[in-house]
Amino acid sequence: MSDTDATDADAGGPYARRIAAVRDRLGDGTTDGPDDADGGGDADALVLFPSTNLRYLTGYTEAPSERHLLLFLAADAGPVFLVPELSGEQVRAESAVDDVRTWGDDEDPLAAVEAVADDLGLRGGTEGVDDGVGTRVLVDDTMHARFTQDLREALPGASFGLASEVLADLRVIKDDAEVAAMRRAGEAADAVIRELRADGDDVVGMTEAELADHIEERLDAHGGTGVSFETIVGSGPNGAMPHHTHGDRVVGAGDPVVLDFGTRVDGYPSDQTRTLVFGDESPPEGFRQVHRLVREAQEAAVEAVEPGATAGEVDAAARDVIEEAGYGDEFVHRTGHGVGLDVHEEPYIVEGSDRELEPGMVFSVEPGVYLSGEFGVRVEDLVVVTEGGCVRLNRTDRGWKTE
Amino acid sequence: MSDTDATDADAGGPYARRIAAVRDRLGDGTTDGPDDADGGGDADALVLFPSTNLRYLTGYTEAPSERHLLLFLAADAGPVFLVPELSGEQVRAESAVDDVRTWGDDEDPLAAVEAVADDLGLRGGTEGVDDGVGTRVLVDDTMHARFTQDLREALPGASFGLASEVLADLRVIKDDAEVAAMRRAGEAADAVIRELRADGDDVVGMTEAELADHIEERLDAHGGTGVSFETIVGSGPNGAMPHHTHGDRVVGAGDPVVLDFGTRVDGYPSDQTRTLVFGDESPPEGFRQVHRLVREAQEAAVEAVEPGATAGEVDAAARDVIEEAGYGDEFVHRTGHGVGLDVHEEPYIVEGSDRELEPGMVFSVEPGVYLSGEFGVRVEDLVVVTEGGCVRLNRTDRGWKTE
Repeated sequence: MSDTDATDADAGGPYARRIAAVRDRLGDGTTDGPDDADGGGDADALVLFPSTNLRYLTGYTEAPSERHLLLFLAADAGPVFLVPELSGEQVRAESAVDDVRTWGDDEDPLAAVEAVADDLGLRGGTEGVDDGVGTRVLVDDTMHARFTQDLREALPGASFGLASEVLADLRVIKDDAEVAAMRRAGEAADAVIRELRADGDDVVGMTEAELADHIEERLDAHGGTGVSFETIVGSGPNGAMPHHTHGDRVVGAGDPVVLDFGTRVDGYPSDQTRTLVFGDESPPEGFRQVHRLVREAQEAAVEAVEPGATAGEVDAAARDVIEEAGYGDEFVHRTGHGVGLDVHEEPYIVEGSDRELEPGMVFSVEPGVYLSGEFGVRVEDLVVVTEGGCVRLNRTDRGWKTE
Repeated sequence: MSDTDATDADAGGPYARRIAAVRDRLGDGTTDGPDDADGGGDADALVLFPSTNLRYLTGYTEAPSERHLLLFLAADAGPVFLVPELSGEQVRAESAVDDVRTWGDDEDPLAAVEAVADDLGLRGGTEGVDDGVGTRVLVDDTMHARFTQDLREALPGASFGLASEVLADLRVIKDDAEVAAMRRAGEAADAVIRELRADGDDVVGMTEAELADHIEERLDAHGGTGVSFETIVGSGPNGAMPHHTHGDRVVGAGDPVVLDFGTRVDGYPSDQTRTLVFGDESPPEGFRQVHRLVREAQEAAVEAVEPGATAGEVDAAARDVIEEAGYGDEFVHRTGHGVGLDVHEEPYIVEGSDRELEPGMVFSVEPGVYLSGEFGVRVEDLVVVTEGGCVRLNRTDRGWKTE
């Protein structure tokens, strides 16, 4: 119990509150099975590995590696970290968890997993044998197969689900500190877009990769830390490949350039897109109309955001505008995605979704039209759902002209 | 068959050869089950997602996302890519695979997975029903649980293993182009270490984070692309936390600083560590002896590398030196790890491993001693196993003095 007490103390910051909320959702330890109708995901334990879920619950952040670094959170016991020996000191210093157990490179990590599962009572099956029959375990959605395979070996009788069953509904509503971090990350990206507009002609002749480097340096200069995803500079026809990042193509005068980038503040990302044209040449035929159309679609979707509206309705608001103009087949992706510790998370603003929007949700609104071999246009802002509608976290001009 | 022919053509570069080798290893489609004694991992299909395995087999590289992007490689059919619609054009342009199928954001990806599994004959179970009984599927070792859960749902009767069963033995032996890329990445890191030594006094007063930024800029300037892992600048007591990256601590004169960093060339990483002391002050008491000890251990381990020696013998060569000096408990990690498209991969140079070394293997040799609250020392080079022994890919002075 002492572990539990320590973790529940105020010193845990938001983590104690979040861990308590997960425990509530795990329920009383009875397993209703994977098809549990209440959707609450009654389960016996949550097992996380290095991920944003882990950061959200403990404050600890590390890249996944090939070594077993697992957090066990049972419904009826304090959280237990099982970590490689060489991470022990770090985890103790940087996480909100007191019970940190280590395994050494000369030990079998599977045996260490089994020992923790035993201590937490996860392996005592209904027959009294240690196969975990009747146990239901939720594993991190991004947990690597090499670790889920080991958990299945340690608990051959258990059933498995995903951690998002209990975590997604918590994470989807952002608290004030989370929104403030994303607002500052958005301001850094906005500042860079303003600088790029002012750069104007100077951008012509740079390669996409050079422009991406320039953007990343400026994001840091404006208080961001690194990038929240690989910077996208899609010039000319490259802009028609929505997940093109950046390459050796030289930005020419008059080329439409899709500029989709973000940075992080306190671990929280920004994500915005502007499609700009640099230099003295006119943009290609049809570009002005497509750009106007995409802006109109984006405006319509942002207008549709309010508590009680569904994600599908927001998607439809943008999609209808684009389809009516005859470009429906060229809008090949959803209208947006939630943003938090993950740059893609719930809620997804996707066709047909009946997910109801609630205050505190943060997501992107980013319709686009992609004309293969010619150019692409995308315009994107993050929005926070408020009681009365929504507020944008990106505030720069959405037009294509530069100075 | 046309897909197979196209993929097997010479135009596939190394990819056609690698895919053919995987098919050979998948065997003839009969399932011997997970405990197959030959270790060759007889299985019906390999399923990959965005990973270095995928890059190795197809040339395609992308970060994992929440969308289903899967490569199916069956023993008896051409590779099939199932990708989000918005990645279709990119995958067709950048991968060596011809059969690229897409699913849209308005479709159920699980249904798309089931359709591909049907086409490849993976769901026809022994009872003639579509549960996949008798099928054995190897999934990417880093595949996220959300996708392995879907594969298990599509093939409820199948058994599952890890892709490394067939890929690890292929990937562990590097070809000349792979070694050349790692050599160039190593030269970039070496150039930066030489510059840091020349910077000398100028480093005193920088924070660890500033020094990390400086290092990363210099790596780029020397032809690297980004970092191969988060740059480690462990000054003073921070050097005693082996996985500390960098923070706000200011580097003082006389502080030992663990500098562990790398960059990438053609996707292949470098990884080296030097522990340096900047400024006019003397390093802390005991540092000189510990540094000398770690160098001696590193030298002994490099000496032990030759074809036929085991990974465990290389580890023991370093560990014995450190244990005999009484610092065994302060050497808390394995001596090294293989390096390739993954910065940590086979072979692991770990206590007791009977893995035999072969020409073409590339791994780190990086013993360390960590005195909690005081300082850490680690010295690391990458080596390539040759017919006669090994060659180091890092060639800078391994001492601690700077100018």
